[in-house]
Amino acid sequence: MLRTHPAGSLRAEHIGQTVTLSGWVDRRRDHGGVAFIDLRDASGIAQVVIRDEAIAHPLRSEFVLKIVGEVSARPDGNANPNLPTGDIEVIAAEVEVLNESAPLPFQVSTALDGQETIGEEARLKHRYLDLRRPAPAAALRLRSKATQAARRVLEGHDFVEVETPTLTRSTPEGARDFLVPARLNPGSWYALPQSPQLFKQLLMVAGMEKYYQLARSYRDEDFRADRQPEFTQLDIEMSFVDQEDIIALGEELVKELWSLIDVEIPTPIRRMTFADAMRLYGSDKPDLRFGNELVELAEYFQNTPFRVFQQEYVGSVVMTGGAGLPRRQFDAWQDWAKSRGARGLAYVTFLEDGTLGGPVAKNLSDDERAGLAEATGAKVGDAVFFAAGTTSEARALLGAARVEIAKQTGQIVDGDWAFVWIVDAPLFKPTGQDDDDVDLGNSAWTAVHHAFTSPKPEWLDSFEENPGEALSYAYDIVCNGNELGGGSIRIHRRDVQERIFDVMGISKEESQEKFGFLLDAFSFGAPPHGGIALGWDRVVSLLAGADSIREVIAFPKSGGGFDPLTAAPAPIPAEQRAETGVDFTPEDDEEA
Amino acid sequence: MLRTHPAGSLRAEHIGQTVTLSGWVDRRRDHGGVAFIDLRDASGIAQVVIRDEAIAHPLRSEFVLKIVGEVSARPDGNANPNLPTGDIEVIAAEVEVLNESAPLPFQVSTALDGQETIGEEARLKHRYLDLRRPAPAAALRLRSKATQAARRVLEGHDFVEVETPTLTRSTPEGARDFLVPARLNPGSWYALPQSPQLFKQLLMVAGMEKYYQLARSYRDEDFRADRQPEFTQLDIEMSFVDQEDIIALGEELVKELWSLIDVEIPTPIRRMTFADAMRLYGSDKPDLRFGNELVELAEYFQNTPFRVFQQEYVGSVVMTGGAGLPRRQFDAWQDWAKSRGARGLAYVTFLEDGTLGGPVAKNLSDDERAGLAEATGAKVGDAVFFAAGTTSEARALLGAARVEIAKQTGQIVDGDWAFVWIVDAPLFKPTGQDDDDVDLGNSAWTAVHHAFTSPKPEWLDSFEENPGEALSYAYDIVCNGNELGGGSIRIHRRDVQERIFDVMGISKEESQEKFGFLLDAFSFGAPPHGGIALGWDRVVSLLAGADSIREVIAFPKSGGGFDPLTAAPAPIPAEQRAETGVDFTPEDDEEA
Repeated sequence: MLRTHPAGSLRAEHIGQTVTLSGWVDRRRDHGGVAFIDLRDASGIAQVVIRDEAIAHPLRSEFVLKIVGEVSARPDGNANPNLPTGDIEVIAAEVEVLNESAPLPFQVSTALDGQETIGEEARLKHRYLDLRRPAPAAALRLRSKATQAARRVLEGHDFVEVETPTLTRSTPEGARDFLVPARLNPGSWYALPQSPQLFKQLLMVAGMEKYYQLARSYRDEDFRADRQPEFTQLDIEMSFVDQEDIIALGEELVKELWSLIDVEIPTPIRRMTFADAMRLYGSDKPDLRFGNELVELAEYFQNTPFRVFQQEYVGSVVMTGGAGLPRRQFDAWQDWAKSRGARGLAYVTFLEDGTLGGPVAKNLSDDERAGLAEATGAKVGDAVFFAAGTTSEARALLGAARVEIAKQTGQIVDGDWAFVWIVDAPLFKPTGQDDDDVDLGNSAWTAVHHAFTSPKPEWLDSFEENPGEALSYAYDIVCNGNELGGGSIRIHRRDVQERIFDVMGISKEESQEKFGFLLDAFSFGAPPHGGIALGWDRVVSLLAGADSIREVIAFPKSGGGFDPLTAAPAPIPAEQRAETGVDFTPEDDEEA
Repeated sequence: MLRTHPAGSLRAEHIGQTVTLSGWVDRRRDHGGVAFIDLRDASGIAQVVIRDEAIAHPLRSEFVLKIVGEVSARPDGNANPNLPTGDIEVIAAEVEVLNESAPLPFQVSTALDGQETIGEEARLKHRYLDLRRPAPAAALRLRSKATQAARRVLEGHDFVEVETPTLTRSTPEGARDFLVPARLNPGSWYALPQSPQLFKQLLMVAGMEKYYQLARSYRDEDFRADRQPEFTQLDIEMSFVDQEDIIALGEELVKELWSLIDVEIPTPIRRMTFADAMRLYGSDKPDLRFGNELVELAEYFQNTPFRVFQQEYVGSVVMTGGAGLPRRQFDAWQDWAKSRGARGLAYVTFLEDGTLGGPVAKNLSDDERAGLAEATGAKVGDAVFFAAGTTSEARALLGAARVEIAKQTGQIVDGDWAFVWIVDAPLFKPTGQDDDDVDLGNSAWTAVHHAFTSPKPEWLDSFEENPGEALSYAYDIVCNGNELGGGSIRIHRRDVQERIFDVMGISKEESQEKFGFLLDAFSFGAPPHGGIALGWDRVVSLLAGADSIREVIAFPKSGGGFDPLTAAPAPIPAEQRAETGVDFTPEDDEEA
């Protein structure tokens, strides 16, 4: 090693020792012919004193130095209590420049921590510099600790880590596959997996019983906010389990993970049915750091003269103290609603004089006005937002408004953690609800989770009769309004799997062609099994307090899947294209 | 859980307890109206007694059962000392069939362990059944243990586990890249990485200092024996280190790994220069479980009348006792040599009467015959094989013959482990020596390891002057003739990296286009760094005593990169092809 000690490890007990340090010039100050170098390495910073001006003169920020010197006490009054090494300094006897540094595109000094705002494009293009900064470096180190913590839990339960293939066949799970041309088999393609779902189920059929993997997965999506084309999931599957077993394991993982940031998560974590989550919070991932539930008003307005409220669903959400907002802020709410595809956001204010304000109030009947405070839970001084329309759209709008209200009114306390399991989700949903999804099959119904999710036992024999009502044996874990992960008890019987495919309009031929190997496997003694997958980028970003999963990914892509560092993806030479076999045409006689 | 106890955990201490077990019917025997079921789960086997014929009758091999029953002592004389649970049996009170099994394509019962030979194609197609067999299941479980062991070592040294991208730019390292069309950027492609080499170097520039990753890597090669298109390497990189630091870490890993199979590897592991390995063993991965070094004879034969031996290199290897081989076995050796691309394998036998046998002897001079035993190290009763030609080809042939001789003559003792570090490899080799490699650049020289390997310090200023002589700061670890892994101290200075590219004939434009981000990174204070990568599939296959890396991969590909289980790769529908953007043509005006 080109050092005897990590710089950040030096303490008063080392005084008098000769040490060798290696690291970067974090900062340099000159005082009367003496240079003080903050030498930084992965462990921290130590102050190095260079008394020879000729040596110190050429040293610049981010030069890489090897220093030999004696550890000394700092002169009286010069100790720095904010620095772990603040009692000492190293008097340099030898200074070797291991590498120089050109002037930086942005400063990375620890001394500037948090004081600079650097554009994301610059950060990603020079990620190797960005990661020298304290916060980005800490985020990656925390990720490594989180991964260790999860493994500690799983290995404590004798899970077997298994690596599943990534050059494989399409695993249809709702998104597009990335495809890889097979040079040795021109005209054929591998797919990169959207998850190891089918392989982990096959491992259960194989008797592996407890599987886990930190699995790289791929989705070729139109890039939505904070999605990455490749991502990592902590993927888990167990045999001979029911929902309680997986939930208990999930809670053990969450406890261990949050203990890394000194937060104790009380267990058991509360549970909420999917139906309640949608009814009360307008979301399948409700943020429960605050209350302020939605109120359903269709019955209240059943005879309303106001045509806008003559709908399948009418609901409301309160903005405490909102009556005092200036008009332009209510206008901004209209824009906010329109940006979400709604026509607007009706509102009523409850004024000090007992009257109602806002453009909606005059359209209501006297009775409706009189009872509105009680019906919506509003108090004098509050505003209430309304949405009316189809149940799913109106609830989604109110649910989003609820979160936005909480942000604007300071209902979200930093450091609060609200976990909830969402259970009893529907098995199917109508096709075409999510534009970005690739629906499997050709039917009015598609899977809410995925096609391999078991119906709850009470629906096992009857889910075809009312696909929209049938409940799945699925569970999602939600934290502060973010889905950390989800899973389900899986189908393990061939006949049930075939009936699910049937509801989804996947023909016998298609299911055999796409999933024949899974159906075959189910024929040979597949055990009951279930599992969960945690979105690892999201989990770590929450632990790190990061706004984006990009902060906890070593080399993330920016918008459109582009990597500003390596400039991938990139065009390829014609010769390389030819080799891939993508332009292969079958021989004439093969086509005949 | 659908069980209270793992089946294999039951002991005499459980007698009298009512337990619930879940698992597979490994075997079933009937005795006088009583059925005995060997119930198998991941923990082992327990004997279940079913006294009700009606219940037992329909049960078949690999049915999945849930059994409730009381643990009882086996009747006197019926204990099975070969089974951990052999003192007890479970008297079934309830038998629930959790799933049925169709008749199997091959038997998987533990009772048949090692007695059946099953074709690999069938095994891979039904891998979910193959993995129920004891040996394949144990291999995967050992892999998981090996991964844990490596992590234990690395986490003990505060390594940071970092996930690097797999949708990235080509990392030229000697093989073809697998390519992924970028749908959102038609005409552009991602490459799957051949290793995380450049990213791990960037992490060193970023100050991460100690990085590791169990990294999935990809090489689009014409499938040679025992290669897989995707493979795993234990990838390690450290800053501020020299060769000794990485070698010490490598030895700590090897010790920890081999302790899993109760083998203590003495350290330090011996080292051998690349030059010695080639001279004495004709291989850069010599099998040192046996001696029998090659002998160089060019000087001995410098005046030979035998034209075949009038070559740059003549060498020999002894086959102890080989003089007694029948003629047809020497013929088989000729075929063996021809299958390796040689013209044949000259040999001489040393007969009991002191004369020399074989077709070569009569071509030699009297002096050459007289001194041959001493020169080659042969004794009466031995055979000696000769190769003559270019040094590299003749050594390779003799090196391979040496290994084949050892196999045929029982010189390889099962359970022997011979480790060696091969150091001081050349920096460059002439281009075009390995048909399967994609040479970087356009020059007479290409890198032996890769273009990012540092010259040894004494060659740092002069490697251009004699590229064929310059030595690299590289080290490979070899075990029993297999390369477990290799690494090097890397280049960390931009000027040195540019000079290496120059020797390899990579133009400034090309190096900037392909590696500009690395060269740029080196400009901003890159620390000295180095690392190693262990071929994880190979390491685990050695630990498992497996003949092929396919035995330690959950779902391996067979020849040509085909997966018999999922039938990947596969043709894709025209619509899916259109979406990938591979057929994108730039607009006319862009082309103009």
